[in-house]
Amino acid sequence: MKVTIIGPGAVGMVLAYTLVLRAIAREVVLVGRNRAKAEGEALDLMHAQTFLEVPVKVRAGEIEDAEGSEVVVVCASVPMGKEFSNRNELLRGNVELMQALLPRLGRVAPAAKLLMVSNPVDALTWWAKELTGFPAERVMGTGTLVDSVRLRELLSETIGIHPQDLRTYILGEHGDHQFAALSVAGVGGERIDDTVERRGLFERAKFGGFEVFSKKGNTSYTVGLAAAYIVKSILMDERRTMPVSVQVKGYLGVDEVYLSLPVVIGRNGIERYLYPELNDEERQSFLRAAAAVNSAIQEIRSSCLEGVAPSPCPLG
Amino acid sequence: MKVTIIGPGAVGMVLAYTLVLRAIAREVVLVGRNRAKAEGEALDLMHAQTFLEVPVKVRAGEIEDAEGSEVVVVCASVPMGKEFSNRNELLRGNVELMQALLPRLGRVAPAAKLLMVSNPVDALTWWAKELTGFPAERVMGTGTLVDSVRLRELLSETIGIHPQDLRTYILGEHGDHQFAALSVAGVGGERIDDTVERRGLFERAKFGGFEVFSKKGNTSYTVGLAAAYIVKSILMDERRTMPVSVQVKGYLGVDEVYLSLPVVIGRNGIERYLYPELNDEERQSFLRAAAAVNSAIQEIRSSCLEGVAPSPCPLG
Amino acid sequence: MKVTIIGPGAVGMVLAYTLVLRAIAREVVLVGRNRAKAEGEALDLMHAQTFLEVPVKVRAGEIEDAEGSEVVVVCASVPMGKEFSNRNELLRGNVELMQALLPRLGRVAPAAKLLMVSNPVDALTWWAKELTGFPAERVMGTGTLVDSVRLRELLSETIGIHPQDLRTYILGEHGDHQFAALSVAGVGGERIDDTVERRGLFERAKFGGFEVFSKKGNTSYTVGLAAAYIVKSILMDERRTMPVSVQVKGYLGVDEVYLSLPVVIGRNGIERYLYPELNDEERQSFLRAAAAVNSAIQEIRSSCLEGVAPSPCPLG
Amino acid sequence: MKVTIIGPGAVGMVLAYTLVLRAIAREVVLVGRNRAKAEGEALDLMHAQTFLEVPVKVRAGEIEDAEGSEVVVVCASVPMGKEFSNRNELLRGNVELMQALLPRLGRVAPAAKLLMVSNPVDALTWWAKELTGFPAERVMGTGTLVDSVRLRELLSETIGIHPQDLRTYILGEHGDHQFAALSVAGVGGERIDDTVERRGLFERAKFGGFEVFSKKGNTSYTVGLAAAYIVKSILMDERRTMPVSVQVKGYLGVDEVYLSLPVVIGRNGIERYLYPELNDEERQSFLRAAAAVNSAIQEIRSSCLEGVAPSPCPLG
Repeated sequence: MKVTIIGPGAVGMVLAYTLVLRAIAREVVLVGRNRAKAEGEALDLMHAQTFLEVPVKVRAGEIEDAEGSEVVVVCASVPMGKEFSNRNELLRGNVELMQALLPRLGRVAPAAKLLMVSNPVDALTWWAKELTGFPAERVMGTGTLVDSVRLRELLSETIGIHPQDLRTYILGEHGDHQFAALSVAGVGGERIDDTVERRGLFERAKFGGFEVFSKKGNTSYTVGLAAAYIVKSILMDERRTMPVSVQVKGYLGVDEVYLSLPVVIGRNGIERYLYPELNDEERQSFLRAAAAVNSAIQEIRSSCLEGVAPSPCPLG
Repeated sequence: MKVTIIGPGAVGMVLAYTLVLRAIAREVVLVGRNRAKAEGEALDLMHAQTFLEVPVKVRAGEIEDAEGSEVVVVCASVPMGKEFSNRNELLRGNVELMQALLPRLGRVAPAAKLLMVSNPVDALTWWAKELTGFPAERVMGTGTLVDSVRLRELLSETIGIHPQDLRTYILGEHGDHQFAALSVAGVGGERIDDTVERRGLFERAKFGGFEVFSKKGNTSYTVGLAAAYIVKSILMDERRTMPVSVQVKGYLGVDEVYLSLPVVIGRNGIERYLYPELNDEERQSFLRAAAAVNSAIQEIRSSCLEGVAPSPCPLG
Repeated sequence: MKVTIIGPGAVGMVLAYTLVLRAIAREVVLVGRNRAKAEGEALDLMHAQTFLEVPVKVRAGEIEDAEGSEVVVVCASVPMGKEFSNRNELLRGNVELMQALLPRLGRVAPAAKLLMVSNPVDALTWWAKELTGFPAERVMGTGTLVDSVRLRELLSETIGIHPQDLRTYILGEHGDHQFAALSVAGVGGERIDDTVERRGLFERAKFGGFEVFSKKGNTSYTVGLAAAYIVKSILMDERRTMPVSVQVKGYLGVDEVYLSLPVVIGRNGIERYLYPELNDEERQSFLRAAAAVNSAIQEIRSSCLEGVAPSPCPLG
Repeated sequence: MKVTIIGPGAVGMVLAYTLVLRAIAREVVLVGRNRAKAEGEALDLMHAQTFLEVPVKVRAGEIEDAEGSEVVVVCASVPMGKEFSNRNELLRGNVELMQALLPRLGRVAPAAKLLMVSNPVDALTWWAKELTGFPAERVMGTGTLVDSVRLRELLSETIGIHPQDLRTYILGEHGDHQFAALSVAGVGGERIDDTVERRGLFERAKFGGFEVFSKKGNTSYTVGLAAAYIVKSILMDERRTMPVSVQVKGYLGVDEVYLSLPVVIGRNGIERYLYPELNDEERQSFLRAAAAVNSAIQEIRSSCLEGVAPSPCPLG
């Protein structure tokens, strides 16, 4: 049960620490641009083994050390500026970064499941599939799982029910074009009605990441724990359901684009798609999200074909 | 965080062991008719403390030792014969048993939450409320939580999704008049349709307890873990939703009777009722369940007023 | 991570339940003389999967279903009479029982680590090695781990320190010839002195199993948890130290006999022997224990060569 | 079970996250100079509640919000420069910082146990006792617990035994005057001999913190987990033994000074001191450590009495 984390920054290290503390993985490799930092993080986690029942080996490495990983998680990103307010600002930089990293990764860990955390996550997850040539069921992004749990927490505070029991999904783009699928939301067989107040909670959830970012300069715990939840469902073959960014296969006429839908995650990656019966408004939102991500994908496609990036373009 | 278990038999001891192993309680008192056996169980659990991170004190005691308990769980029962096939066979015996135990319990632990496991659980939970005089929110029974998780497991095997994510409820009586509320069942925003195959799974779930009983002579793990799940939600104030036997308060015109409905369980016991929108067939099933339990309640009422039991009747 | 439990009685089922509840194994096979009972236990544990994060498959089977197990635990035993007071009373019956079970087991699971729980555990562990032909590092018995944790708990109650931190070992025979190696006992760098009071605690620990047995008719939690602790250290390659029954290899001149010494348990079974520096009295006790177990071994050897048992004798 | 963390930086946030993930505390207050950052951290942890079984409330606050805390952990510190190589460089700055914070803390949370993490931890723990007026058993510092677990991990790698089972202690000053008490080190009843190789491991352990610091710019996981381990032993009354910085009470003639010795930690803080039988060399090392810390204490005393700090001096 080996997991490689590319990008041991704030999110990557919450993930690494969680994998260690919960004994989800038995071996963790940290791959970062700054090798010394990755080594310091690994050493710090190794020093703490006395506090763990189950020993976990953590070490720094290069992409090539991902060999044999069951899951590879990509958190690497170009820096977010102080004025960061839209994940698409990172598109061009991260497209090039992935172009430099992922083809190598695809060659050394050809059987891995690949989890993208870097933003804009939907377009980059599509890009990761192109760069690695992995089948769609082994390439996914954290997507709106993060937004969904933020909404559940806000709802939980207003209605006094454990957020795990609130079956509410934010779907679509992990970005401006996300939407709450309130028409299928429920708890204990009751509907969670679509009210003005709850639309307000959805807006807060949607901007929750930016709220945290504006206060502490990054977001780390929620995203890192979301990634750990996905990794655990793969490694333990738990077959949990959750909304993550996946290749849409014909749902509402959308194809190829990566967007968040509820899926079942297990040993093979995406084991099954679930198709909520959305209402008209939600379907329109889904289509708008598809258009938005598609436009980012076209941007990647063009810049790649035009040879802007230093690495060779795998397309066409 | 003190829990008293009355009846440390097969179910009671799975509960005790689970509370110890998961460090849910910090103090557990075992009250049984056979004091030596309760002492042996307590001693065996104390001998095992080296294997636990968090120490838990377990001891045998009398009803009076329940003083200060946050939760009291009643698993005591007259014996089930080998031919046991209907929980109502235990009614008369357990009514008298509770009449001997619960008024004392109500006096020594007047602030406890009371969880009934003994069968027939719906009528006995009503009876427990009468015998202790506790408010309705502090008296509940394991009810159809046990049946619901059996159905989830059977469904899980056919559709390959973690049973925790399958939002399916068996409601009504923990007995012949239970029913699967399939009209509100779902997973990941998808409906779990009501099919012939799934009705078959419901029938298997309904008789799952008897299937286990016929093979091993009792049922213990599922019931004991269900009780531990409820106790944990109370002690940790988790506010989890689950179907348990509660006093129905006007739902579909039913009042007073104890039946299983989804509720939210927290520090105060039942924190909130949830009211699934049942379809016609399900509503009829609920009313039939109400009639069945009501008839058992009337039987208790008459025999009590006639003074059949050796203890004084607390009614009328 | 497959574990087979032969003998799903009181101890075997505490072990099975613990493996499930703590997600130590991912697949558990229960092999019992009474197939229906084993099926009932497996079904009861499967019904409870909703309460577990990590799914674990439990099923009933025959010896042949042990194929592919990483660990096989043998808890099967002829019955203990009501007057049971010495583990050697079970010798003849269990020798025959093992002769019927273990050669088959050795053939279907030739790479398994074998953990003996049945009594008299030292002689039977030797016998298990002979019957399977497994190398010594893959055959061990729960031995005095059980007695040691009882002593730690009793000490813990008198000195107010977590029993995990009390480094006290009962060694030798899991029977009358056990002894507390107090000369090497310590906590936090302090010695735990050998006092009259502590000798009294040792006597209580030594008879702790019988005390529990006389009260509840069996012992289950401490022994089952001890077995789970050993299984976990193997499956997770934890390399924990603990006293278990192992083949002695020249320590104090003793050879071949099985007795409890502190060892390191990991993926390969016994990874390393530890040799406490005993004082004279303790060394004498160890030699007496060796003589006692050796005499039981000679008894097995003779009766086997005389062909008393129905199965063929594997000895030369 | 409320815990307040003063200084939600790298270490404080590993502690906060661990308390949340392991459900050690039920309420966590983060007090930082930068209120927005503390709010961002709290919000990020709240957003993640869906991934937790047991809900934990996390919020930002001021010193006054520590009211009712069972434990207060102080991680606040003046910044370490890039060339940081000796914890005493932080003395003057942190003495003033504590003078501004801790008298207020002592007034609002007069019954709390106080755990110091800030450096130089031994002198500052003495200072914290003076500033709050708390009794000695409720004031402690992480001390050489951190160094000890680093040594255990290094030893574990060379001898292949779980570090929890390696009973080796680094004692004295959490600084240059620490020493490994190898004369009392053992595992499984065997001695861990004092060899040249092991002295080398001790030197690496001693500088382990600086090694991590030089690579990643801080140390966080080992220190944060060590603090969580101490907090858990208090909150759960586990009575674990561990070396932490405590007021020495006459050991080897040393009095008043704070140094690390093995103690038992429980509900009341320091429940008991343990006195390892050190050899001559170790005793000399302990006395040198006492002199070093005493000199830092005298420095605090003088600067306080001279009124250098902006806050009033609490010393006579």
